[in-house]
Parts: sequence; C-alpha cells; structure tokens
Amino acid sequence: MKYVIGVDYGTLSARAIVVEQTSGHTLSESVYSYPHGVMDRRLPDGTPLSGSDWALAHPADYHEALKVIIPDAVRKAGIPGSDVTALAITATACTLLPVDQNLVPLCMKTSLANRPHAYAKLWKHHRAQLYANRMTETAEKMQADFLKNYGGKISSEWAVPKVMEVYHEDREVYNAADRFMQISDWLTAWLTGDPEPQNGSIAQYKAMWNRRDGYPSDDYFTAVGEEVPEIVHTKLRGRRLMAGERAGKLCAEAAEQLGLSCGITVGMAHTDAHCGALGSGACDEGDYVFIIGTSSCGHLVTSKNAAVSGVTGALTDGLVPGFTCYSAGQACVGDMLDWFIQHALPGEYDLQADEAGMNLHQLLERKAALQKPGECGLIALDWFNGNRSTLVNADLTGLLLGLTMETRPEDVYRALLDAIAFGHREIVDQFSRTGMEIRRVILCGGIAHKNDLLIQIMADVLNLPIDVSADPQASALGAAICAAAAMEDIPLGDAVKRMKCGILKTVLPDPRNVSAYEPVYAVYHSLYDYFGRQKPEWMTQVRSRWGMHGKE
Amino acid sequence: MKYVIGVDYGTLSARAIVVEQTSGHTLSESVYSYPHGVMDRRLPDGTPLSGSDWALAHPADYHEALKVIIPDAVRKAGIPGSDVTALAITATACTLLPVDQNLVPLCMKTSLANRPHAYAKLWKHHRAQLYANRMTETAEKMQADFLKNYGGKISSEWAVPKVMEVYHEDREVYNAADRFMQISDWLTAWLTGDPEPQNGSIAQYKAMWNRRDGYPSDDYFTAVGEEVPEIVHTKLRGRRLMAGERAGKLCAEAAEQLGLSCGITVGMAHTDAHCGALGSGACDEGDYVFIIGTSSCGHLVTSKNAAVSGVTGALTDGLVPGFTCYSAGQACVGDMLDWFIQHALPGEYDLQADEAGMNLHQLLERKAALQKPGECGLIALDWFNGNRSTLVNADLTGLLLGLTMETRPEDVYRALLDAIAFGHREIVDQFSRTGMEIRRVILCGGIAHKNDLLIQIMADVLNLPIDVSADPQASALGAAICAAAAMEDIPLGDAVKRMKCGILKTVLPDPRNVSAYEPVYAVYHSLYDYFGRQKPEWMTQVRSRWGMHGKE
Repeated sequence: MKYVIGVDYGTLSARAIVVEQTSGHTLSESVYSYPHGVMDRRLPDGTPLSGSDWALAHPADYHEALKVIIPDAVRKAGIPGSDVTALAITATACTLLPVDQNLVPLCMKTSLANRPHAYAKLWKHHRAQLYANRMTETAEKMQADFLKNYGGKISSEWAVPKVMEVYHEDREVYNAADRFMQISDWLTAWLTGDPEPQNGSIAQYKAMWNRRDGYPSDDYFTAVGEEVPEIVHTKLRGRRLMAGERAGKLCAEAAEQLGLSCGITVGMAHTDAHCGALGSGACDEGDYVFIIGTSSCGHLVTSKNAAVSGVTGALTDGLVPGFTCYSAGQACVGDMLDWFIQHALPGEYDLQADEAGMNLHQLLERKAALQKPGECGLIALDWFNGNRSTLVNADLTGLLLGLTMETRPEDVYRALLDAIAFGHREIVDQFSRTGMEIRRVILCGGIAHKNDLLIQIMADVLNLPIDVSADPQASALGAAICAAAAMEDIPLGDAVKRMKCGILKTVLPDPRNVSAYEPVYAVYHSLYDYFGRQKPEWMTQVRSRWGMHGKE
Repeated sequence: MKYVIGVDYGTLSARAIVVEQTSGHTLSESVYSYPHGVMDRRLPDGTPLSGSDWALAHPADYHEALKVIIPDAVRKAGIPGSDVTALAITATACTLLPVDQNLVPLCMKTSLANRPHAYAKLWKHHRAQLYANRMTETAEKMQADFLKNYGGKISSEWAVPKVMEVYHEDREVYNAADRFMQISDWLTAWLTGDPEPQNGSIAQYKAMWNRRDGYPSDDYFTAVGEEVPEIVHTKLRGRRLMAGERAGKLCAEAAEQLGLSCGITVGMAHTDAHCGALGSGACDEGDYVFIIGTSSCGHLVTSKNAAVSGVTGALTDGLVPGFTCYSAGQACVGDMLDWFIQHALPGEYDLQADEAGMNLHQLLERKAALQKPGECGLIALDWFNGNRSTLVNADLTGLLLGLTMETRPEDVYRALLDAIAFGHREIVDQFSRTGMEIRRVILCGGIAHKNDLLIQIMADVLNLPIDVSADPQASALGAAICAAAAMEDIPLGDAVKRMKCGILKTVLPDPRNVSAYEPVYAVYHSLYDYFGRQKPEWMTQVRSRWGMHGKE
C-alpha cells in the first residue's frame, strides 16, 4: 500500500495527515499549536506593536511544526516512512514572509528580530488598507479591465499592498528582503531545496498574477507607486506552478529530518480554503463549497464567466482545471465568536459551563438554540475584521443593533450566528443575481463539526440544503490529493473524485424558520447596504481617527 | 432649632434626611434598600412575567422604608422628634399604584397577589407603548394644541397609558382599583390620612393635567378609547396641589409610628428629579439642572415660552412659581452602565478590580480615562431603555458601532459614557435651536459624585462649564425644602435660595477634547437622526417581532 501526506497550516496550528493513496482514507493525524500564536500586541522580545490590526506569525513555529507532525503522523499510522510516495503543503494565504537569499526569514536575524515588518504577515493582518485603496483607485482611474476579476476591489490582505506597507514603513527590512514568499512556498522550498517553484494558484488569488495574462501592465504598477514594479517582478518573483503539479523532489536534508525517502514527490497544493474544497469533493458544475473556521471562504465551480461584483476572485482553472472558480468569503467568523467568549462574556457563564460539562461555545449554542429566529431582538453586522465579500473593505467594523436592558449574552451570541449566515447570504445572492447557479452546497471546516445550530441557521437563511463534509480535516486531505495528483501526473479532478471524503449529513432548511428569518434578514440587508455602501465613512472615520491604523 | 425631613424614594432604595430648617444644612441620613428591588422577571410568589419591559415595585417595601428611615435619621441627627416641624416625600414618577377605597394596594390582597397589573408600575415600566402611540396619533389627527407641551409625543411612561394597559390586559384588576395613585401621593396620604390631596406638579408632567386648562377635552379622550374619560376623571381623581403647598397634617397613627409630633406639616413635594433641581438651587432664569442616576433628567428654568420638539414637558410654574420649566431626559444612564457590568464584562475584570481595591465601575473608569476622545473606535446609541428626549420613543434600542477584534471592555464602557454625553447634547442643542438660553449647568445625582470621567466628557461634549452640586442627596434636600416652604407658607423659590446646597466644584471643558469630540459627535448625530427619525422601524420591528412586548 502507498501513502501520501497532506500538511495544513492554519492560523493557530498545523496538522499533518497520512492518507491511503488510492482511496483517500485517512489513517492518522498529528497537530502542532504554534507557541507564538498570532502576534497582535507585541513581538517575542516584548517590543510593542503600535496601533491596531497587526497579525504576525513566527516562521520558526511553522518550520518546527513540520519536523514534529510529519514523523508523528507516520508513526501513528503504523506504516514505514518509505511507503510515503508524496507530500504537499497547504497554508493560510496570503501569509507573506520576507526572506534573504538563503531563504532565512528576516525576523530570525538578530539584527532584525525587533522589527515588526520582518515577521510573517498573516492573511488577516489588516494594516495595508491605505495601499489597497491606492491600487483600487488607480485601477479605477485607468479603467483597468483586470479589476473585474477581483470583484472591483483590491484587498488589503493581498501580497502587493502588504509589501508596499513594508516599503513605506520599514525601508531597511524591505531592502534586506530578497523575496517575500507565501508561507507555503517557503516551506515547500525547504522540502525541495529549490525556491523557484511557487504557487501560481495562490498568486492568481492573492498577487494579481494571472495564468493567461501574467501581471497587469507596468504602467499600472508605476502609477500606483514607483516601487511597485520592483515589488511584483523582483520581490515576488518565482516560477508559477498550479495546484496538482509537481514542485520538485524531497531533498536529502528534509528527507532525513522528516523520516521520509529522499526524492519522493513534493506536490504544489493550494490555499487552505481551496484545499478544503478539493478534500470535500468540489469539482463539478455548480458545486459550492463553504469552509468555516476563524474566517470563511466559499468557492463556486462553474463553467460560466461573468463579473460578480464584490467577489474577490474569479479565475480560470482556479480550483480544478476546466472550470472557473469564483471565490468569496467573510473575514471574521470563528474569530468573532472567540472574541465574544473572551471579551464580552461574564464570569458566571464559566461556572454554568463547568456545571454542564460543556465548553463556553457549547453552552451558548444550547441557550441560543432555544430562541426562535429574531427572538433575540438583535441584529449584528459581522464585520469585526472588515468585510471581504461582497464589500471588500477591511476598514468596516462590527455593529450590534437592538441592545436593551433585557439583552443577555446568549442573545448577542445568537445575533452573531445569525450575522454569519446573513453575511453569507449576501454572497450567495450576489452569485444568483449574476446568473450563477448553485446546484449543491458543501460545508466543511472546524466550526462545521462543532456548531449544529450555526449549520441549521445557515440552511434556514440560505433556504438551501447543506451537505456537511465528513472530514473535519478536509484541507489537509485536499493537500494530500494534490500530492497524489502530482505524483501520479493525473488531472487534479480525477484525484479529487477518487480520494475526496464523504458527506456526514445533509441539513435541510426548516420552512417555518425560513419564513421567520425573512423580515429579520430584510433589516440586516438594509443595514448591510447602508453601512457598507452608502455610509462606510461612519465606520471607517471613527476607526481610523486616532491612529487605529498607525498612519492617519 | 427646628428641623424638616425630606424623604426621597429612588428606584432601588429610599433615603430620609434631617435638615436644619433655616440653613438647609443636612444633619443625618438613613437609607433603606427595597427587599423586592425591581421585579422584571417574576412576582414575589414566583409567577413569571411573560414578555419583556416589565418594571414593577412592591408597595410594602415603600411603606416599610418610611417606618425604618425616618426614626433612624432622627436618632442619628441626635434631635428630639418633637423638633421636626414638617416633612415631605419625593419619589420616582410616574410610578403608579392601584389601590382600593381604603388605600390598600391591590397586590397586597391575597386574591390578587399573583396578578402583575396589581403591583406598582415603575416609571421605567415600558409595556404601554401601544397605548401611548394611540394617544399621540389621536392627538395628531385632532390637531390637539396640548401636544406641543409634551414635545409632540405622549410617553409610555405616563399615567394614562399605564392605566389603559391594565384596562386592556387585566380588567378585573382595573375594576377592583378605586384609584391609581402616584407612589408619593399614596405615601403622603398615609401620612395625612387623606387621599384627596394629590401632586399637581407630577400630574402636569405625567398625567396630562394642566394647572390652567385642566385635562384635554373628553372628545379627545373618548377618541383614544371609550375607557379613557373614566380613567382620567375617576381612576386618577384627586385635589391637585403644587410643590411647596401643604398636603395636610401628620395624622396620629403615622406620628406614633414615625416618632414625630402629631399635626406637623406634611408638604407636597415634586418628582425626585425636580426635587434634585430644587435642592441644587435651580430657581433663576437660564438655570439648567441635570440629574444623573439610573436615568437622567434635565430641567431648564426660563421665562421664555416656545414649543421645543421632543422635550417631554414645558409647564408653567413647573419647577418654581414664576417660570416655565422645560424638562427632558434620557431613559437609561446608570442602568445601562450596570447592564454592561452585569452582562458583558468578563470575569478577569473582577480579579483586576479586587487587586486594585476598586469596584468595577471605578476600574473601567480608570481604564477608559486613558483614552483620547474617539480612540475607543466605537460609537454607541444609549437607547437601551428607549429614548425619552428628544425622540420620545420607548421602542428604540441600543446600538454599538465600531466593534473589531481589538475591542476591549473598557472601549465599550468609554463608548457608553460618550453616548450619555452625546445623547444629552442632543437635548441641549434642541433648547438652543429653539432660542432658549442656558446660562448655567448644574449637575447632581448619584453618578455625578462617582464618575469624574463622565462629568469631564459631558463638559467637553457640551462645551460648557458644569457646576457639580455638593450634595449627593439633592433630591431629598429638595423634598425638605418643599416641606419648609409649606410649613412657613412662603414662596418655594425663597426656600430654595435659603436652603439649597452649595457647589462642590466646577468642571471646565478641555479645549483639545472639545475639538477632538466634534467629528465623533458628528457621526453620533448622524446615527441618532437616522435610526431615531428616518428608520426607527429597523429597531422597533426587530424588538417587537417575537412578542418582546407581549402583545404583538
């Protein structure tokens, strides 16, 4: 029997799984939580991060994870390391790391360890909005055609704004950087010993590169800023490979440290969200895969081609060859629920949870599940980390409407769950308005397996049946599928059909809830439109006034 | 030396003070917390209150308080009870109690003890909005002139809507009630043995009675509902006396139970808010007294006469004879801060407060004081209990805008303090727009002596110096002043000038904060206008959909 390994780097932990190459059956799993977590207040040496919206990661955590979880997963699987034929890495994106010529992360040099911009910037690092706005405005002025591929807006989460931020705010770090690499590319380079193969799938989504047309013109980049042509052609350089292609062979040093055979295939995977879609089996016309974790991403596989406003990616062969993949998402889902638990929940709920033998999310879910739609009397806007789709504005903020003296924490929690579903309905409705047909909704990701109430609310609010993916680790499975496709040199779609995980259950909408939610959603939609499109400055002004972004 | 006693019934406790009749100097104080508190979820026997917005009080608590705190205050003062020449009672208003012919509260009859409508309805009981709306709409249709005295809207807090609620929801209680009495009138009747003298000052503010014109016409009342003429002429009947007049003499039974002399003067006082204004010395042209406690009230003393939209009372001789008094207020101030502490503050803040030897409000005030205006990044609408002025809509709800992953509890607390000040600026600006001049702002009430940050924010947001009343018990002092005026048969203004308390300090606006707050207030004002005037249904629809008011 032959095996492949998929490694999935999330925001807070990494996970490796060992998978049977033929069936896709998962034998074992190993998880590693990053010791440094997400750095949003200070660096490891205590240097404070001034202003807000920082989200940094330490590359040492990511490197260490690899050396722990691959041997551990192989051991747990009870197979010899020599039976592993291929591996591939997926990670959050765009998580961008500055490195020197030898691929050493700049933050790991003593001289730069106290420099915030020398660390990896996580996908949810949101301090580059200024530069993203500049890119969007310039493209609008030049009536650039490529903008429609990104829903009309450049996101502050993407590579170019993030590197521009470094250029403008720490020139020394910028100059010291030979490249800025996706964290998955950097790890893949360590596996193969070759920095050139880089992930073209991610570059399509997060770095404005396009498989057919390459980059937008240098005229455009120069108009954005004199530094930008250098950023795209030098600092972000690499040889673009697509998911399912072969990045290279496992080099001797990595093979020894990981306990695998030298020379086995290292595949090129995709973003974690796209890998989740692959692992859950999305590869046919009208498949819509929705991944919920700290944030959420939805991917629609379709043969249609149209500009969908506010959908951040619409790319040929974006998920699987032969189809266009439209991608959209919410910037803050599990993160927002965790914020609530951590910063807005009274101590008595800890006692109640202990008594009930539940965690706090379970306790709140149980209480919130007793309510009918709208009964909480609250409506929330789920923009605690900005809005990715359909408004593409990282400076928008969360809102709670309906607070009264009778409001209790479970009411707010329910309103946050409602807001997640309502926010996603905005995306789905945007597809429908553009004539895209959603034939099947597949849900995967951590929260999908933890919060039944949320799934029911989503089915009710979308008025669509939802297939829940059987594998809570669909992203890691997707990476393993990419590894297998690369090793066998077969179309990615074929590997997906053979190795995808099954469906745990199908959640149907409850017709009473569907109609009860309609008027509540109508108010949500009005607020969405008003604060998102007509008066975004009410949120962005207040957020930024006192240097919340460090610059104003 | 002669002494007078003022008794002040707040929402959660009652307080008596013994005062030197000549100087107004306070000798002693005694406080009693109501064992039943505010009943908003269930009755004493466990009967649940279905739906929300209940706020009931138990009259037994109020009666017991009198018998405890008057003898206790006299004892603490070290004077013989026979040196007390007069007393008067002030209380929250409109707090309304149904009683039988013998003044026995209906809730104290065994057969009605499980009936919510048989209890006293506190000022902040907000379930009569439906009836208040009916009264406003009928007056608008009939183009009734009296409406302008109430800022254009009848409030659900007032007597007639509250009795209509009983009529429509528990006819048996309604029929069993000989009268519905202000809680202060009921207590005064127990002191004198005579139920007829009733507080005309309160009736002007809360029962649509007017000293010059009496009630609106029966045509109007009949148009509101067939039961309404009976409500105003029978259920709310009484002989109206104004604050500072003599209600009667202390009867033998009460004198014995209280340890005072039979036959001394029982004065007619005012609402607790108006008494606070009197105690703080408001009696001259342009004096604006602002009382902050669980809610807030502002009173402007002026010789001008104009309709001020959204100001809930504009009444001749309303506070002191010779001036019109314009009254306005916020329905939820201390209440809202307490809600936050109780329902939205994580347990770790308890530990921090313990360590710092502070209570939670002090801890949050200290943290919030470190921020510059707007730095919290949040804007709140302080409508957790509806909006009294200038929107007069009890169904509006609270709002929080600007939530992000970086939001911390002290940010929300600061936003709530800002909202209290911003909400009050709406009132002050409404006066200014109508050509009313505010010459001096006096602040009193419990929070005024506890929260320095709030006072500074108010000075900064209003851009006005604020005189802080020296007496934290200004309301009780105001009642004592009314007692003295009644006993001596002198104009109330003269007694105020002689007996008022002094000024603890004057808080000046900080010019840097004044300008820093301007753009933040501009957003608040936009939200105020949008949710309060243009789209109130976004709040009221959601609040009421699932029977939050029990009726819809």
